[in-house]
This record gives sequence, C-alpha cells and structure tokens, in this order.
Amino acid sequence: MLKKLTGLLKKNNSKTVRLKKAIGSVLGFDPNSIDVYVLALRHTSSAKVQDTTGFREHNERLEFLGDSVLGVIVAEYLFKKFPFKDEGFLTEIRSRIVNGDSLSNIAIKMGLDDLVSFEGSKNNAKSIYGDALEALIAAIYLDTDFKTCKKFVTKKILEQHIDLDEIIENNKNYKSKLIEWAHKEEKILKFHILNETVNGAKRQFEACVIVNEEIVATGFGLSKKKAEQDAAMKSCTILKIDP
Amino acid sequence: MLKKLTGLLKKNNSKTVRLKKAIGSVLGFDPNSIDVYVLALRHTSSAKVQDTTGFREHNERLEFLGDSVLGVIVAEYLFKKFPFKDEGFLTEIRSRIVNGDSLSNIAIKMGLDDLVSFEGSKNNAKSIYGDALEALIAAIYLDTDFKTCKKFVTKKILEQHIDLDEIIENNKNYKSKLIEWAHKEEKILKFHILNETVNGAKRQFEACVIVNEEIVATGFGLSKKKAEQDAAMKSCTILKIDP
Repeated sequence: MLKKLTGLLKKNNSKTVRLKKAIGSVLGFDPNSIDVYVLALRHTSSAKVQDTTGFREHNERLEFLGDSVLGVIVAEYLFKKFPFKDEGFLTEIRSRIVNGDSLSNIAIKMGLDDLVSFEGSKNNAKSIYGDALEALIAAIYLDTDFKTCKKFVTKKILEQHIDLDEIIENNKNYKSKLIEWAHKEEKILKFHILNETVNGAKRQFEACVIVNEEIVATGFGLSKKKAEQDAAMKSCTILKIDP
Repeated sequence: MLKKLTGLLKKNNSKTVRLKKAIGSVLGFDPNSIDVYVLALRHTSSAKVQDTTGFREHNERLEFLGDSVLGVIVAEYLFKKFPFKDEGFLTEIRSRIVNGDSLSNIAIKMGLDDLVSFEGSKNNAKSIYGDALEALIAAIYLDTDFKTCKKFVTKKILEQHIDLDEIIENNKNYKSKLIEWAHKEEKILKFHILNETVNGAKRQFEACVIVNEEIVATGFGLSKKKAEQDAAMKSCTILKIDP
C-alpha cells in the first residue's frame, strides 16, 4: 500500500516537474507557483470531469482577467508605437491583434495546444487555445507582476508573432476587396445601416452587406464606417474572398 | 516689450503652478510632469481652437489608453473580491462600474469639471468628464507606474465612489422592473431577439423591448439574457421607470 502511494506521489511529482519545465520553456522563465498556470490551462470541458476532490475550477475567470491585461499592454504598445495616430486607428489595430483567431494561431505556435487539458474532440477546438493564452497571461500577471507580464507579452507575443505592417495593410481593405470582387463577378453589392443604438455618449451601428438582394453578413462598430468594415470582413470570410 | 514678456511668463507660470496644485489635490500626490495631465484635461472641442503654435493635441488618445488601464484594474479588483463568481458576473459588474454615466458622476465629484478645458456649452457635456477621468488615469500611468496608478484607481475611485452592493443589487432587475411596470400600467410587453451575430467563437445578440406593439429600445449582449437586460435598461430610461 505504502509502496503504491509512494509510486503515485512520485508519478504525480514527476508530472508536475515535467509540466513546470514545459510551462517554463513557453514563458522563458521559471514560474514561482505552478498552480495558477495549471488552472490557466484547464478548459471548462476538462473541469466538468470531477476528480476525487469533487468540482474542479476552470480557466474562464483567468481568461476574463487575462483579456484585460493583454488589452492594456497592447494599448500601450500601439499608443507609443504610433504617436500620431488617432484613437480610432489604435482601437481598430488592437482589435485585430487580440481577436480570437489571431490569439489561437499564436497559442498553437507557442505550443499551448500540447499543454491545454480539455475533454472532447480536437476539432473545432481552436478557440480553446486563444482563450488559454489569455488565461496564461493572467497567470503570469498574478504569479509575477505587471512589468514581467508586459515583458512577456511584448517579447513573446507582439514582437515574435505580430507583423504590424501586415495587420495594418492586409485587413484595411475588406470593403474595397468586396467591391472589387462584386465588380469582377458582376454581382449587385450594397452596404446598408440596419441599426443605430445610442448608449450614453456612445453610439453603436449595425451594418449589413447585401449581395444580389441577399444579406451575406452583419457587422458592428462605433461608427458607420467601422460597422461596414466589420460586415465586409465577415462577408469576405463567408464568400471565401482572399484578404 | 521685455516687461510685457516677463509678465506673460509670470502669468503662465503661476497658472501652471495653480494647475499643478489642483491636479495634485485630485491625485493625492504631486505629479512629476504636468504636461501629460494638461493634455488629459483637454477636450477635442478645446483643441480645435488653434493657439499660436498651430494645431493642439487633445485627450482622445489618452482616453483610449486610460479605458484599458481602468479596465484591467477593475477586472483584478473584482477577480479578487469575488473568488467564487464566474466570468459572466465579473464582466457584467465591471461594465456597470466603467460605464460613461458612472465615470462622469465620479469625475464631477472629484472636481474634474472645474479642470477640464473645452469650448462650447456646459449642457450635454457630462460625458466629457468621464472621458477626462479615463484620460487622467492614462496620464497617471504614464507619469508614474502601474502600481501607483492602481493605488489611485482603487483608493480614489473604487473605494471612495463605488458602492458594490448597490451596483450588484440595483441594476440587476431592469427586466423585472419593466415587467412589474407593464403589469401595473396594463401594457403588453414583449422581449424579442432581433439578431444573432457569430464572430469567431463569440456570439453577439441583439434584443428589443416591445410595448403595445411598438419597439421602445434595442440592446446588445454576449448572451440573449444580457441583450435583453441591456434593452430593458434602456427602456427603463426612455419610459422614465425608476430603477
């Protein structure tokens, strides 16, 4: 019995050591406390499986915190990088950097897909990795401090995986791309503002893209232009028009 | 000529000293560099007035940065205050704390309305103060560091001006409030989901409130429930139903 227990402890211990090593290699430094990172890498689906201790926590609370930590670090990065650009540009570029798809791709490149624990099929699981990356950022912030976390995000995410020129250039012209496509394919293309919602001083618009009298996609934004861009971007995906 | 210039410099100098003192009393500490605070308190309308140096910068870029700095500080505050609440609750309560109206009221209580420079009527200018408060938070962050800024937001904003119990309790029941009102006034009330937009892994819903076959307001949210709450909140304002 004692032998079995010692074996189990050894096994768990070596698993923790391996995980600590793997996380350390993603972070570029040794974590202080491993627990918060383990939690960051535990998807809801995995927490549904109860272990002997009963209910298990998952990474969604950390994802909430990490999303804001990432947001402020990217905000400051862009604020300083583009001293002459207005807040509309900064907001737009930040949202392109921190969108789920972009984060999931970065998470996979970092090797997080091997570390995330979840139950179920790996198909359609891509967003899990982006969410885990956000949770990991919160874990770093809680385990170390804001400065260390900022360094990690700047060096390991922004400088290593984000090509700002490409982001600014590539995504800018969804609307023009769509217009070009409609011209070439001889389709009738319309942009239409569906809704305007006033919430205090802020306005939100909803726009839609109509091709040959059929709505392809709707989009939202704080200006008509942005709502149209959002709708155009979604339409390009749906219509499989290369950006 | 020299006399006039010396007088002008003296005048400007004493204005700066006075401003530094006023800002210091809002912050609770002496600012290092006054310039970034002056910028934080300069509304777009005021920047439109060109001085002898030509175009003047305004506070919207700082507002962009301050909005995220405030967001992460409030996120961490709630994350630690409510260890057993899920991310939906945290997101909801944060959005109630950082909404424009709430921030403007706090800014006025702090005396920012006397410090903000803008051109035009003071009527309908309320959102200006909330925006200036966000810009001020960015100014503190840039002038000092994250830790000092977090201390300011926690002590001078959250602990002094936010009644969490009231926020959680008071706003929760816009929908019930509306249902009670409709019952009392014998109106036919309907909630209707207008739209569902899928953006990657995230879904956004648009709901509307219909009273006697007329749409009163629409609202948005990441769940149907939240979109309805948002629409209900706006309807309560429009129909002048006390929260």
